[in-house]
Amino acid sequence: MWLRQRVVRAHRTLNCYGLYSSFMACFVYTIFGSCKDVPVGPTAIIAILTRETLQKSDLEPDFAVLLTLISGCICFFMGILHLGFLLDFISGPVSVGFTSAAAIIIATSQVKDILGIHIGGSKFVEVWQNIFEKIGETKLWDTALGISCIIILLLLRKIKDIPFMKKAAKMSSRAQVIMQKSLWLLSTARNILVVLVCGVMCWLLESHLGSSPVRLTGHVKQGLPEFRLPPFQTYHKNETYDFVDMVSALGSGCLVVPLLSLLETISIAKVFNEGKPIDATQEMLALGVCNVVSAFVSSMPVSGGLSRGAVNHSSGVKTTLGGIYTGLLVLVSLQFLTPYLYFIPNAALAAIIIAAVIFMVELHVIKPIWRTKKIDLIPAIATFLCCLFIRLEIGIVIGIGINVLFLLYASARPSLRVHKDTSINGCEYLVITPDRSLVFPSVEYVRAVISKQGTKQGTAVPVVIDSTHIQAADFTAAKGIKSLTEDFSKRGQPLIFHNLKPSIIEIFKGVKPSGLRCSSSELELNDCLKEFSNISSASMNRY
Amino acid sequence: MWLRQRVVRAHRTLNCYGLYSSFMACFVYTIFGSCKDVPVGPTAIIAILTRETLQKSDLEPDFAVLLTLISGCICFFMGILHLGFLLDFISGPVSVGFTSAAAIIIATSQVKDILGIHIGGSKFVEVWQNIFEKIGETKLWDTALGISCIIILLLLRKIKDIPFMKKAAKMSSRAQVIMQKSLWLLSTARNILVVLVCGVMCWLLESHLGSSPVRLTGHVKQGLPEFRLPPFQTYHKNETYDFVDMVSALGSGCLVVPLLSLLETISIAKVFNEGKPIDATQEMLALGVCNVVSAFVSSMPVSGGLSRGAVNHSSGVKTTLGGIYTGLLVLVSLQFLTPYLYFIPNAALAAIIIAAVIFMVELHVIKPIWRTKKIDLIPAIATFLCCLFIRLEIGIVIGIGINVLFLLYASARPSLRVHKDTSINGCEYLVITPDRSLVFPSVEYVRAVISKQGTKQGTAVPVVIDSTHIQAADFTAAKGIKSLTEDFSKRGQPLIFHNLKPSIIEIFKGVKPSGLRCSSSELELNDCLKEFSNISSASMNRY
Repeated sequence: MWLRQRVVRAHRTLNCYGLYSSFMACFVYTIFGSCKDVPVGPTAIIAILTRETLQKSDLEPDFAVLLTLISGCICFFMGILHLGFLLDFISGPVSVGFTSAAAIIIATSQVKDILGIHIGGSKFVEVWQNIFEKIGETKLWDTALGISCIIILLLLRKIKDIPFMKKAAKMSSRAQVIMQKSLWLLSTARNILVVLVCGVMCWLLESHLGSSPVRLTGHVKQGLPEFRLPPFQTYHKNETYDFVDMVSALGSGCLVVPLLSLLETISIAKVFNEGKPIDATQEMLALGVCNVVSAFVSSMPVSGGLSRGAVNHSSGVKTTLGGIYTGLLVLVSLQFLTPYLYFIPNAALAAIIIAAVIFMVELHVIKPIWRTKKIDLIPAIATFLCCLFIRLEIGIVIGIGINVLFLLYASARPSLRVHKDTSINGCEYLVITPDRSLVFPSVEYVRAVISKQGTKQGTAVPVVIDSTHIQAADFTAAKGIKSLTEDFSKRGQPLIFHNLKPSIIEIFKGVKPSGLRCSSSELELNDCLKEFSNISSASMNRY
Repeated sequence: MWLRQRVVRAHRTLNCYGLYSSFMACFVYTIFGSCKDVPVGPTAIIAILTRETLQKSDLEPDFAVLLTLISGCICFFMGILHLGFLLDFISGPVSVGFTSAAAIIIATSQVKDILGIHIGGSKFVEVWQNIFEKIGETKLWDTALGISCIIILLLLRKIKDIPFMKKAAKMSSRAQVIMQKSLWLLSTARNILVVLVCGVMCWLLESHLGSSPVRLTGHVKQGLPEFRLPPFQTYHKNETYDFVDMVSALGSGCLVVPLLSLLETISIAKVFNEGKPIDATQEMLALGVCNVVSAFVSSMPVSGGLSRGAVNHSSGVKTTLGGIYTGLLVLVSLQFLTPYLYFIPNAALAAIIIAAVIFMVELHVIKPIWRTKKIDLIPAIATFLCCLFIRLEIGIVIGIGINVLFLLYASARPSLRVHKDTSINGCEYLVITPDRSLVFPSVEYVRAVISKQGTKQGTAVPVVIDSTHIQAADFTAAKGIKSLTEDFSKRGQPLIFHNLKPSIIEIFKGVKPSGLRCSSSELELNDCLKEFSNISSASMNRY
């Protein structure tokens, strides 16, 4: 399966550069990687991001190789600086929105090959406009082949789920197992089968008719790539571009490609590692080295691929050494099989891609998101729409931005539970429970709520702040608490912090608040309240 | 005091535009404002931001008037959209760093008047470079006057703190009070006294000698400004600028000026409101209307001023109607007093500004920050340095950014307390307590820690997640918890969520996790653990 996908992607994106990408990274990851199921190579998402980055200003493949080098360096340094936690800010909904949009964009880019027409454009809307303009030029044979390939692939995909055991209850258990295994093989090898059948068909047609009724892949450059320095200088539009020019031409791609390749790699590692913790730093370093070395064999950026990871996993790969076989097979095909790639029809390749990516459109997660937290649909949908209609990178940045705003809003506006309670000696008091830590964006709000509730009750009612959930505080919080205690002292209303962690008390004491009273147990709290009620009844007696 | 400051600032920044700013906003705030001590008018910080915005591309005062209108509209709409919480993200340390840097920049801009030299430039480094280049041209009389004024002002400032009561113990209590009051008056009115004395001195010198030994303010345009539409079109460098050109020439100033004027106004309101909650929305709307109306009398942007707020407060202003007196006095001076402004020496005005702003350099907060939370010094110092050496706006944005990173890091890496406990029936179990809510950036980390701790103990030891502090969760968290419970089920190790809020259980159940076990009381927890130990001992018996 990896071979066809490699071929497919190589063809789709940057001709030879995909194939070159496929062997070096496999070898390198074997040495540096930590997760046996992560197959490093060119992937659909990274290919589409690379294509977007290059198409912006119509750049040559040399830029893709430099992008590989830069991505590698960035991954590597992020690993060294332990910046793995940054990836955690890509939430589930954002990643769903991104993947779904990427899948639709990939599928859209293949429609032209199914229809056998030539069109330009890379943006979603643009491509569909061009398709509808040229819909009249549709080639019958390409379309027929493409659509039948898609149907066959989807059926073959389903075949392994047939509950064979029940239907063939009379068969011997051994025959059952063989039947099930061969169905599994048929299903798993469906892509290579379609490529082989179509390729042979076209070869026969071409050798008998002299020409093929469907469009073919054509010549693929044979042989192994040279091992040489990545290009630090190139020609573009008749101008010499030096390193700095090239980097600025690549623009945001220099950050987006490494970040998303890390995201892809680490999320795959998480899926297949079955709860064993992933060493994100190790993975970042490994992916960095993979990309840097790959850049020396003229490769496009690489990352861990989900579908190949699934094949690795279900084929029972035991260690990262599996990568060596993958790499060797790619080397062999680069050396000996390229002449046969000529006969593979474009429509069949497009069908394989479409039949694979439509399952990346994760419509089925809308329901669980709705059930768990409806508001999480906002970043998911925003990411999806912005990725689809603006650009993939912009979409993911907007999604992360919206999601981080949720976090910040939550830390700025904690919820405070207010209820009344009575102490053992009959003293009524107000309990206010903030539900999270006191930090600079929330402290003024908390102070305002406590003041308001305190004033509403009148100065005779003591206020107790149940500080169980206050696990952290900062200077701004300490200043706010100082003003709060001073306000309450001025009014003569007691304010007691109950169950405040000693480390937080230390922080509060740093700004020297006057009249900060804390209690660390029910007993102490009752003593505090008793003391107060004595004072107030004494002062009442006096007047 | 307000009068002189107004005069000073008017002179320093945009000639007449400061004076025009001073009356309209006072009237408008009287109607819309909610805090009696907030005196709306031109302030040092807003003046310096306006100057920076205009000096970038050498813009005319017309741009300042448009900036006033735009600031007003932005404040107003922020009020309507209830975006007051955004201001909470300017933490104590950032605001300290900003104010200190602004004070130093303001003081720096006045040094040239103290020395009596002419220099250009607005940036901190640039100005000091120019000063040292032209240090040879220093005028003796300007310098002498400036420095003596600064010394006198600082002494007068101190005078009101003299503990008169003790020293003059023999005086009658009435004489004491009078003495104290007059010292207070002398101290509070020190700025007008310096201006008056210097003005009269220079007037005498000019009428006797025919010229003054020190540089004077010169002519100030007399009379009231017309009430007219703000300029939506202007000429700049021999080109016609329409509204869009003007806005893009103002650039980031269009956002920075309204945000900082809001910040200044609301922080003053907080200082003087003595714990009573501030209605930030009301203040935003009021400041918005103040700026919009001021733009019709050719004013520069206005905001609430700290020093004038202090004077209002200590003078015993009772309601926002106090603004009407301020406004009327400015009107009178615009109409009748402008001829007399001619004789005020530049050095005296510079001295007043320097003597006022050096107390805005808040070196004294370094110690409390160090005592409370050392890491908060990073945003404070970063803001200070970036404001001083790059630009004020950039500095504050960098400071907020660093501070928000702290928040995000805290939400991505909660701390988990781990300890062992034994149930009533002697079953040993592991308790893991996350200290805050489970949200998308932290859930993978929490999952990894729990998995690691669970594996370390071996599958025989049940793991209890004390969920007291988990007050919120999202879809990503629910997915993470689902994987976690499935990992534990696969291993056959029990995982119990203790004290999980019902609302969070609902969220977790949205993704249909298999084997999510919760206990809401000690009793239930013990039952869960007992059930498990029965199963495990039963299975032990079987083998």
